[in-house]
Amino acid sequence: MRHKTAIACALCLAAAVALNAAAAPAVPSAEEVAAQLRDAAMAGHDVAFSWVSELTSRFGPRPAGSANERQAAEWAAARLKALGFENVHIETFPITAWIRGTEHAELVAPSAQPLVVAALGESPPTPAAGLEGDVVIFPSFEALKAAAPGSLTGKIAMVSYRMVRMQDGGGYGLGFPIRADGPAEAARHGAIAFLMRSVGTDNHRIAHTGTTRYVDGRVPLPCFALSNPDADQIERIAALGQVVRVKLFSGASYADSHSQNVVADVRGRDKSPGVVLIGGHLDSWDQGTGAIDDGTGTAIMVAAAKLIRDLPHKPRRTVRVVLFGSEEVAQPVAPFGAFGGHSYRDNHKAELPTHVIAGESDFGADRVYSVALPATVADSDFSRAVARVLAPIGVLMSKEPAQPETDTGPSVEAGVPAFDLNQDGTRYFDIHHTPDDTLDKIDRQQLDQNVAAWAALVWLAADSDVDFRAHAAAAAPQAK
Amino acid sequence: MRHKTAIACALCLAAAVALNAAAAPAVPSAEEVAAQLRDAAMAGHDVAFSWVSELTSRFGPRPAGSANERQAAEWAAARLKALGFENVHIETFPITAWIRGTEHAELVAPSAQPLVVAALGESPPTPAAGLEGDVVIFPSFEALKAAAPGSLTGKIAMVSYRMVRMQDGGGYGLGFPIRADGPAEAARHGAIAFLMRSVGTDNHRIAHTGTTRYVDGRVPLPCFALSNPDADQIERIAALGQVVRVKLFSGASYADSHSQNVVADVRGRDKSPGVVLIGGHLDSWDQGTGAIDDGTGTAIMVAAAKLIRDLPHKPRRTVRVVLFGSEEVAQPVAPFGAFGGHSYRDNHKAELPTHVIAGESDFGADRVYSVALPATVADSDFSRAVARVLAPIGVLMSKEPAQPETDTGPSVEAGVPAFDLNQDGTRYFDIHHTPDDTLDKIDRQQLDQNVAAWAALVWLAADSDVDFRAHAAAAAPQAK
Repeated sequence: MRHKTAIACALCLAAAVALNAAAAPAVPSAEEVAAQLRDAAMAGHDVAFSWVSELTSRFGPRPAGSANERQAAEWAAARLKALGFENVHIETFPITAWIRGTEHAELVAPSAQPLVVAALGESPPTPAAGLEGDVVIFPSFEALKAAAPGSLTGKIAMVSYRMVRMQDGGGYGLGFPIRADGPAEAARHGAIAFLMRSVGTDNHRIAHTGTTRYVDGRVPLPCFALSNPDADQIERIAALGQVVRVKLFSGASYADSHSQNVVADVRGRDKSPGVVLIGGHLDSWDQGTGAIDDGTGTAIMVAAAKLIRDLPHKPRRTVRVVLFGSEEVAQPVAPFGAFGGHSYRDNHKAELPTHVIAGESDFGADRVYSVALPATVADSDFSRAVARVLAPIGVLMSKEPAQPETDTGPSVEAGVPAFDLNQDGTRYFDIHHTPDDTLDKIDRQQLDQNVAAWAALVWLAADSDVDFRAHAAAAAPQAK
Repeated sequence: MRHKTAIACALCLAAAVALNAAAAPAVPSAEEVAAQLRDAAMAGHDVAFSWVSELTSRFGPRPAGSANERQAAEWAAARLKALGFENVHIETFPITAWIRGTEHAELVAPSAQPLVVAALGESPPTPAAGLEGDVVIFPSFEALKAAAPGSLTGKIAMVSYRMVRMQDGGGYGLGFPIRADGPAEAARHGAIAFLMRSVGTDNHRIAHTGTTRYVDGRVPLPCFALSNPDADQIERIAALGQVVRVKLFSGASYADSHSQNVVADVRGRDKSPGVVLIGGHLDSWDQGTGAIDDGTGTAIMVAAAKLIRDLPHKPRRTVRVVLFGSEEVAQPVAPFGAFGGHSYRDNHKAELPTHVIAGESDFGADRVYSVALPATVADSDFSRAVARVLAPIGVLMSKEPAQPETDTGPSVEAGVPAFDLNQDGTRYFDIHHTPDDTLDKIDRQQLDQNVAAWAALVWLAADSDVDFRAHAAAAAPQAK
């Protein structure tokens, strides 16, 4: 994406800045600085990729509450200090951790065939001998809900909704409720276990896990995602008129544990407080190494803030990076999820009124294609400057308002205005929550474009005196 | 590929044939019939896809010597009879079967991380408590061979050769010896286990298995393939200066068993015998369902022969389809592999002199791009007719001579001339020998083109009186 032009441009600007520094002390405008940050990132900035490479290599999967998540947080804090961030510290909070353990599944009739499954997050274990039953297939969640009472007694319920590939990830919204509420619905009809086609757009033998929901403090049934080819196979065998019988085993368990947020600041020059809050999450699902969910989100935040930190002049306001813990998992007690985001809001209640705007990156590392700002600045010099700076790297102004995300959601609910840099999600759900979420899936050029967009926009927000709160309406956060 | 034109063409020809049949008994030339067969297949022939769909759905994986392989053979024989083939029967032979059992692998240092591995075929089990050791990485097989004597005592040897993607699959030839001889080489240096980067071109968390080799009746070491992202991860951690420690477990076992070939004929009109031998293999690796290796090979053979069978006039010679068993696995006793191909040759020794030419399809279902004929007919009316018939579907005359393949190899060694229809292998090694070898990977349009090429060429060979043996030189079969 305009890579060579961007390099040339960045070099010219760097030269111009150097000349300026030598010849005249003239400070460039905020918009000029934003363009410099953008072009420097597009030219190939090293911080983001090396961050996500080390994070995912050193610690691999980082399930909420695990030793890997804690060690990754300690490493991140040390690395942020080394990069020159201020106020770097870790904030710990208690959670219930879920540990997958061993698991396997197989067809036992009409022929013996291994199945690729992944227990849904928070699924209870099966009995030690496993569970075996005939499969009843429902094409949609609605069909399961409409099943006759008692019709699933002793059976394994399977919902085979097939996620639709969309740029904005819109197909995920239809799959998510099946994962969240399917186990409870299957239990209500007497089923002994719940299977679902993975909420994913690939056709590899990898199953997409993800959290389900606790009901009255427990997940009602052992529940598993099937890889898409395995779901196809079961449907084809059933279409041949044969009874599909499946055996399932999960050795999952729960443990009292802790998770943590890592906080780091690039301090602003103003005495009066003002914070631009940006974040990603350090925890990941346990099958992959959390490269695109959300290693790259944390990398983009750190790299963008580092570019701002290294400028010869500070922004007006403070840029705060929060690397959240425990984003992925539901919890058995209120507020039932997003414990990292809630912990941050609770710990920082007193200073939350100084938070001028908040955004997070948690949708992979493919290119940003649109920006959504608070409605308060829809028609403003600020948004026109943002549009001018981001258009050259292919980012349009969104027609939709910004949506609160999981980790910053609690702060947004408490009145902090939100912004979004919307990423291309076309291939995100090929990888999301699978063993395939590994470093090699990252497109470095698109990762650089993310850093460019974040650095430029965050700089513009931090160096401005715009009040994004005026008329800002809080909206409910969307589950991830 | 010329789909609409092909349909139109086929319809015209069908109409022409119908008119001919009604108006005049004129028999079309062999080349005209070949073109009709080609165009009928290109228009979308149903036999091939429904064959591979049922085979892979009903029986899933079909490891050599398994109940699934045997049941698939029984189903295939029944289906071939139903399709109107003659002389349909099953020929059984003894083998040593290998059963994967459960297996797992994980990094234990510098952090706990699950690894995706697959034991190589015929690997012995680990001790019940598993094996644990530090990993010593070699970039090539040559580097392992050059390791100092005793330098691997107590270690796990890992060869990280990365397969190169090529249209003709040429990169596989460099990876195969590592899989075949790596375990013995690692054992010779004192290693406790052998790891290798998968011989595959994908970057998914799926490991490519495949047979290794027995040495003096046993495989010397537990040996595993790592998925490519897992091999990357180990290399990156080592590059960070950290010791990589791995734990491996395999519960593999061996059993005395049987495999079988399925034989079916389309009888020719000549009294004097003459057989065109074509084949694929029914067994598969155990992680996927053997869709492209080699469900499609068997499907292409059956569909092509069925098109010839359904012609209003028989070919001069008999077309024999053999669906071989036990292609994938090495054996502890001579001839050490290809027991299906050897069994066929031994059982049919008396009639082998009547076999005029042989070919097999065992390279997926992507399009055929070249045809290799015996050198005896390099400059002949026969090869010119083949070139004219196959050029319209994108098949060129190969500059390389035909290579004997695994299953027909023993017959070729015994003097039967070989032909090849070379397929595009660009994406074959993304899937080969992995859990991902499932029905959804098949491109139906390319599958149809394979059927078209095989039906046309096999018809031309079967309806001719060309002696392909004159001056034919036997070559050694290539291991698969």
